[in-house]
Amino acid sequence: MKIAMDVMGGDKAPGEIVKGALLAAEKFTDMEFILVGYENVLSSYQFPANVSCRYCTQMMAMDESVESLRQKRDSSIWVATELVKRGEADAVISAGSTGAQMASALLILGRIRGISRPAIGFMMPTVAGMRLILDGGANAEVEPEQLYQFAAMGEVYMKSVYHVESPRIGLLSNGTEAHKGSATVCAAHEMIAAGPFHFIGNLEGRDIPFGEYDVLVCDGFTGNVVLKLSEGLSKMILSLIKEALSSNLRSKLGAALILPSLNGMKQKMDYKEHGGAPLLGVKGLSIVCHGSSDAKAIYNAVIRARECYENDFVGKLSQMDLPAPTQP
Amino acid sequence: MKIAMDVMGGDKAPGEIVKGALLAAEKFTDMEFILVGYENVLSSYQFPANVSCRYCTQMMAMDESVESLRQKRDSSIWVATELVKRGEADAVISAGSTGAQMASALLILGRIRGISRPAIGFMMPTVAGMRLILDGGANAEVEPEQLYQFAAMGEVYMKSVYHVESPRIGLLSNGTEAHKGSATVCAAHEMIAAGPFHFIGNLEGRDIPFGEYDVLVCDGFTGNVVLKLSEGLSKMILSLIKEALSSNLRSKLGAALILPSLNGMKQKMDYKEHGGAPLLGVKGLSIVCHGSSDAKAIYNAVIRARECYENDFVGKLSQMDLPAPTQP
Repeated sequence: MKIAMDVMGGDKAPGEIVKGALLAAEKFTDMEFILVGYENVLSSYQFPANVSCRYCTQMMAMDESVESLRQKRDSSIWVATELVKRGEADAVISAGSTGAQMASALLILGRIRGISRPAIGFMMPTVAGMRLILDGGANAEVEPEQLYQFAAMGEVYMKSVYHVESPRIGLLSNGTEAHKGSATVCAAHEMIAAGPFHFIGNLEGRDIPFGEYDVLVCDGFTGNVVLKLSEGLSKMILSLIKEALSSNLRSKLGAALILPSLNGMKQKMDYKEHGGAPLLGVKGLSIVCHGSSDAKAIYNAVIRARECYENDFVGKLSQMDLPAPTQP
Repeated sequence: MKIAMDVMGGDKAPGEIVKGALLAAEKFTDMEFILVGYENVLSSYQFPANVSCRYCTQMMAMDESVESLRQKRDSSIWVATELVKRGEADAVISAGSTGAQMASALLILGRIRGISRPAIGFMMPTVAGMRLILDGGANAEVEPEQLYQFAAMGEVYMKSVYHVESPRIGLLSNGTEAHKGSATVCAAHEMIAAGPFHFIGNLEGRDIPFGEYDVLVCDGFTGNVVLKLSEGLSKMILSLIKEALSSNLRSKLGAALILPSLNGMKQKMDYKEHGGAPLLGVKGLSIVCHGSSDAKAIYNAVIRARECYENDFVGKLSQMDLPAPTQP
């Protein structure tokens, strides 16, 4: 498998991105890595045999408007995505602007038949294991039909990549009853319920961490708030624990004893540990990473890309035969 | 101050509601409590001098459609809200159906001039103290003008009840840049930025637990997900800690030492500790409680009602002179 790595995108680019790629290259000697970035950045490194470079002269800044992508056909994300389109790479990985990555994927790779908008499929740590939440932030506004398509893509993803036989699909709402939610969510509820899914109905915010579902469908605005709130809250609680543990001598003594157990828990709750999120619905693998990704996160994104590739996720999604939703 | 207590509403009604009212009646001997409920429920109690009963013959079930309120003019929430309208009580408290409580407040008390939709103002525990999030779930869909009104009501609330001189107003979105979010959120951003506020711009999910704001404005769908996810996630993390602490003898020993410190932390993170949420925008005090409220939560809701009453929150909100928002 060959990975095109956008070395210029992300808050910690290029250093941590290159470092993550090198970690992965060392671990997976059967894989090849094409680092896409500026010559003056990449020429200072010594690379092993399974790492090559593809120089480019432009990049998309994190907060740059997607419109400027038109004038940046030699930007790292564009060039890396083109490598996938031409079959020179099997996946592109980027921690840069999500908007630019999504636009590149749409314009270069194109949408899968029957899918009107791609979605970010985020794997969320829960007490019951990793669960898929989509959309994780690609579409701030959605139509009911799109939520129906997210359900379908999520089902294929959990079936093909995580080998869940009959994925339980939940719809995020502000109440468990079918009539709860915005007009869009209510209409989506009817469509998904009438569709060919193992639909378990509406789920509420409090259900998310307990993982009694396989796929949680929501719009990208809410999905983004869910992911970032989970990240912020677990960070905050861990810092409160630290504070409580150093509040007096007795606690400090206790803390020294429980440290190993707590570190195991911290790892479970570290959202960065869990790597990138594929863009579901485009004709090729494009893995979206957190803007603040470090080498470890990039390494984990490689593992995610590999899982998708080995299980032919894009192929299976392309063959999906989804009936048109019943209009409520 | 007189409180009309809806004894029939809530998962733990009537037992825990009556118990909570009695706790408050014992603590606040200068207050009066009117318990509104079925005669066969209330007649079995012995009440102190500052607690009286008002019998009714109907109630609204938790999942009952708001439409049936028309046929239930002798339901506990309707009767309790009428007591406020007639000046026989200064606030109504309920843990019953939020929809029924909101409809009763709108129909009986009416909206404050300039406010098109009332919002639930939820106090959220953060590391920096309690912060106001609105809407906490009254409106699954909103217009930009309504988010602008939420900002205005939130400002008056934090000024008058919490004595914050110049409340920092944040808008929840899926990115910090002004152009991030749904079309509604983007339009609201422009309106609030042009309004008479101390506006600190968009906030993301990860910012919520750190409390670098006084008021966080969002639609009721997202607000509801935020509150319930925070509740679920802190519950989940605390159970993970417990599990980690009992995983081996060394941890158990450490756990015994740190227990007192951890309990203090647990209290900080317990969303039930923090009582009810006022319905902002109606001409009277109506305090919404969590459906699962126990006696302690009801007691805390009384404290919240008292704070609002003593600081004449509704009076100040009625006098608010809010300029019409600039249309983007």
